Amino acid sequence: MPRYNAPVRDTKFVIDEILELEKFGNLSAFANASSDIVAAVLEEGGKFTSEVLFPLNRVGDEQGCTRHEDGSVTTPEGFKEAFQQFREAGWGTLTAPEEFGGQELPHVVGFAMEEFMSSANQAFGMYPGLTNGAVAAILAKGSQEQKETFVPKMISGEWTGTMNLTEPHCGTDLGLIRTKAVPQNDGSYAITGTKIFISSGEHDMSENIIHLVLAKTPDAPDSTKGISLFIVPKFVLDDDQNPGERNAVMCGSIEEKMGIHGNSTCVMNYDGATGYLVGEENKGLAAMFIMMNAARLGVGIQGLSQAEVAYQNAVDYAGDRRQGRALTGPADPNEPADTLFVHPDVRRMLMDGKAFTEGFRAFCLWGALQQDLSHGAASEEERQAADDLISLLTPVIKGYGTDKGYDIATNMQQVYGGHGYIEEWGMSQYVRDARIAQIYEGTNGVQAMDLCGRKLAQNGGRAVQAFFQVVDDECAAAKDVAGLETLAGQVEKANGELKAATMWFMQNAMANPNDLGAGAHHYMHIMGIVAVGMMWLKSARIAQSELDAGGGDKAFYEAKLVTARYYGDRFTQDAGSLRRKIETGSDTMMELPPEAFQTAA
Amino acid sequence: MPRYNAPVRDTKFVIDEILELEKFGNLSAFANASSDIVAAVLEEGGKFTSEVLFPLNRVGDEQGCTRHEDGSVTTPEGFKEAFQQFREAGWGTLTAPEEFGGQELPHVVGFAMEEFMSSANQAFGMYPGLTNGAVAAILAKGSQEQKETFVPKMISGEWTGTMNLTEPHCGTDLGLIRTKAVPQNDGSYAITGTKIFISSGEHDMSENIIHLVLAKTPDAPDSTKGISLFIVPKFVLDDDQNPGERNAVMCGSIEEKMGIHGNSTCVMNYDGATGYLVGEENKGLAAMFIMMNAARLGVGIQGLSQAEVAYQNAVDYAGDRRQGRALTGPADPNEPADTLFVHPDVRRMLMDGKAFTEGFRAFCLWGALQQDLSHGAASEEERQAADDLISLLTPVIKGYGTDKGYDIATNMQQVYGGHGYIEEWGMSQYVRDARIAQIYEGTNGVQAMDLCGRKLAQNGGRAVQAFFQVVDDECAAAKDVAGLETLAGQVEKANGELKAATMWFMQNAMANPNDLGAGAHHYMHIMGIVAVGMMWLKSARIAQSELDAGGGDKAFYEAKLVTARYYGDRFTQDAGSLRRKIETGSDTMMELPPEAFQTAA
Repeated sequence: MPRYNAPVRDTKFVIDEILELEKFGNLSAFANASSDIVAAVLEEGGKFTSEVLFPLNRVGDEQGCTRHEDGSVTTPEGFKEAFQQFREAGWGTLTAPEEFGGQELPHVVGFAMEEFMSSANQAFGMYPGLTNGAVAAILAKGSQEQKETFVPKMISGEWTGTMNLTEPHCGTDLGLIRTKAVPQNDGSYAITGTKIFISSGEHDMSENIIHLVLAKTPDAPDSTKGISLFIVPKFVLDDDQNPGERNAVMCGSIEEKMGIHGNSTCVMNYDGATGYLVGEENKGLAAMFIMMNAARLGVGIQGLSQAEVAYQNAVDYAGDRRQGRALTGPADPNEPADTLFVHPDVRRMLMDGKAFTEGFRAFCLWGALQQDLSHGAASEEERQAADDLISLLTPVIKGYGTDKGYDIATNMQQVYGGHGYIEEWGMSQYVRDARIAQIYEGTNGVQAMDLCGRKLAQNGGRAVQAFFQVVDDECAAAKDVAGLETLAGQVEKANGELKAATMWFMQNAMANPNDLGAGAHHYMHIMGIVAVGMMWLKSARIAQSELDAGGGDKAFYEAKLVTARYYGDRFTQDAGSLRRKIETGSDTMMELPPEAFQTAA
Repeated sequence: MPRYNAPVRDTKFVIDEILELEKFGNLSAFANASSDIVAAVLEEGGKFTSEVLFPLNRVGDEQGCTRHEDGSVTTPEGFKEAFQQFREAGWGTLTAPEEFGGQELPHVVGFAMEEFMSSANQAFGMYPGLTNGAVAAILAKGSQEQKETFVPKMISGEWTGTMNLTEPHCGTDLGLIRTKAVPQNDGSYAITGTKIFISSGEHDMSENIIHLVLAKTPDAPDSTKGISLFIVPKFVLDDDQNPGERNAVMCGSIEEKMGIHGNSTCVMNYDGATGYLVGEENKGLAAMFIMMNAARLGVGIQGLSQAEVAYQNAVDYAGDRRQGRALTGPADPNEPADTLFVHPDVRRMLMDGKAFTEGFRAFCLWGALQQDLSHGAASEEERQAADDLISLLTPVIKGYGTDKGYDIATNMQQVYGGHGYIEEWGMSQYVRDARIAQIYEGTNGVQAMDLCGRKLAQNGGRAVQAFFQVVDDECAAAKDVAGLETLAGQVEKANGELKAATMWFMQNAMANPNDLGAGAHHYMHIMGIVAVGMMWLKSARIAQSELDAGGGDKAFYEAKLVTARYYGDRFTQDAGSLRRKIETGSDTMMELPPEAFQTAA
């Protein structure tokens, strides 16, 4: 039977030993995150996700959501009750400000919980996940009244949130938006238009749904500079701020998707619905990017999450299934066959899974720490440095994390052989669910262009130079540890490929911007390889020092060392070939006319 | 709307210009394959698959197959009628011997048709596809009476065939088989056991189903040396050789799968069913390998086929969808946005699709020619040389082709952005259908071990040395053509990586066989990269010579040249990093005990 065991031990390793979160206890942003509180959150979060959410994962996939004739939507059996438990435990309040009823824990802790939730049930996790994005936008750009009205109920889970960007004819290119917002005499706006792909757009789990909607006022510029952001509640609030009259926003249909069936992906029709401007007119894009950046990190974690749950199940299967014999002679001569664990190609897939999930988890949480520090560090200089890093790396976490997450989930399915293809065994769902993360919140091609077209050049390349330095420092530190020289050299070499690719962009992209576009996706992958490599260096240094100190949990630290070396052997090598591809430029890629792609009969 | 256009023009290019099939007209195996006959088959095949089979592809996915209480199975709406048309047109007889009513065309032609059929409707194509495998086994190992009884009706499509290998506890490791075959007084055997994952196991499209079943006689050795092969008809033949009494073999259930829903994947229960020995007792494994090798090439083509149909649709979408602007300035300033074609990252995915599908098609058909020559060449020496090559490359066609086919199908889905994830657009199905090909007929890990553990070392490495030479010769020839020097150098370099990896295996695998297993999958990929690179060199040489001659179809040949160069730029680079991964050996891969893979809470 499929199972999920939240990786609490490994998460604690990252938070306590790599990030040393307690060190930041003197900063107010980290004041609530004492080691015992964090441990309690992780342990309770692990239980809740493993015991409550995971058993509903298959149910959600099989049943999906149902839209009724009146436009209402029913979620899969058990989702509503599970959300009630989520609410009661206050899981939605983890990182929200105390001012609005939150626990004000750092994002590092919130992200760890997001991983557990998404591994256990990605479709379920998206209901509070989208709410988080909506809350972030209101906190950043809403009026004090809007914050007080909406945030407490949204973080408590009484109400949920959505993000309404995409329309049938425009996704990435938001300048093409057609949804209209016409000012009314009472200061509100009448919103009219069709939004598609609205995750959690309509459902039966909360008392109200707060839609955040991008729309254009009548005389707005016809570009991204003419987009405004509106709050459109499913039920307009009455004078006591309780859900009152039904607003003119309806779910027109539910999409049939490849995966995440448990989440209702809706076409939302706005027919003169009452909306309230968030921030200023025509400044919606900036607010949208706040939602987006929060969401992109969450999506990167989804890549990790599906790799993790698929990995855990593949490990179980490899231990149970007996087939063939070890190449080096029978491992279990008294059994009719050896377990799959003896076969190098199965090991390759499992070690890939282990090296990616542990390394990428460390990278994500380190990124979350940068996010926390970008707001909460002591000096402006430190805040800026942290902001530089997380801004640079957000598209890498999203793009590289979800590409690799999908690959790993696919390979974990491969471990099962034929059984992997049968829905009953659960592996197909992890792959199908993982697939969406490469697409939404900006396809991975969009992430790559965000990284290479925007982030690299900002402030004269300050962020990427800082990243090179962080990696170089880590390589230098690791080289001083006996036994880590090879790994340090491998990561240093990969960082060298990244520097060379950066230089190549500088020398070529000005003359031909397509050279940048042609290499962006590969560049994003090199940066992912390097960033995770840096985290493996940190992990290995700590593991070696723990082993030298002769403390407990020897097997855990030994496994860290071996897995770190495996990462160096098998992951860093790709940086070179990716760099060489980048350096071939865009000529052969862009040369053919579109007609040449047509297949002739 | 999804569409499929059989790539007849490109297939003709491969058959007429690269393989020069007419050149072999003096050999009896090729006697029926005149250029006009081949052209007619491809054109009619293109029409049949595009017009009859493709419109049923989504239907099959949505409806799946239905098992009724009596164990009978209904295929999706329209499948039965389409199969009737398949029969009437004689598509099942293409490559079968004239002696049994076949058209005795070379496999090159049969393979081309297999690609079209599988692109149009993979689930449908599996019904005749499995029949082909069963026919191949009967032709190779059956008695003359068995051939006369079964082959004509199977190739005509009156009857279909299946392959019954897997059991619940054993897939790859066939030595563990438990199905029993007890000799009866009349010379037949009573077959009892359970087989799973039986494609086309039960359905309503033919008058009889001829199951080929692996089983063990009572005193057979307890290993792969104790396996025998049996014919078990769904209806036992009466004295007139017509389907008579219902045999004791029933479909117990249908599997719910990730894809290929239109094919009935059955659990088959044998309860003392009447079976007839094929060949000798305990020699079933050899017969099974005949079925397998035919099937493996067909599965490799499935990888190509899903990449192709997904590519065609992605090209259409990229031409229709307008989003954003070219990095070099608006391409269509009068439109609100440019088409997706202007974006380098979309181009990257489309060019990857074009370079893989065209190059791999050429490789598959070149492989099919080797298969034809292995039987039909004039001298024993030539037959042996061709057999060496196709034996070596069969696991590469299957393993590399399906890995890349899945990747390409996934990237073609990515071109669609959010719409790619919605079932209605059809892209999800191509990915889900493509996924099985990496798993069945021996997982790709098994293919890699077949290549590295068996094929490489056979006859002192004769086959792989011959392959190196074929590639080197091609590189040398291409270097003499102005404009192809770079590409020739890139393929030569990749071939050098392959040689180096081969040498590394020779030096290390004897001492530690796990070093071979740890590198096998990557080695298979390098060989795929080199083989397809060789085909691009051939294509480019011909294209250049056609352009030099100033004949027609200039755009076609120019596109070949550009795509060949793109292949060199973007595909050959991976060979180096794969070789470096191989050379890191198996130490870090095999070091950890299975417990170390468990996730601790």
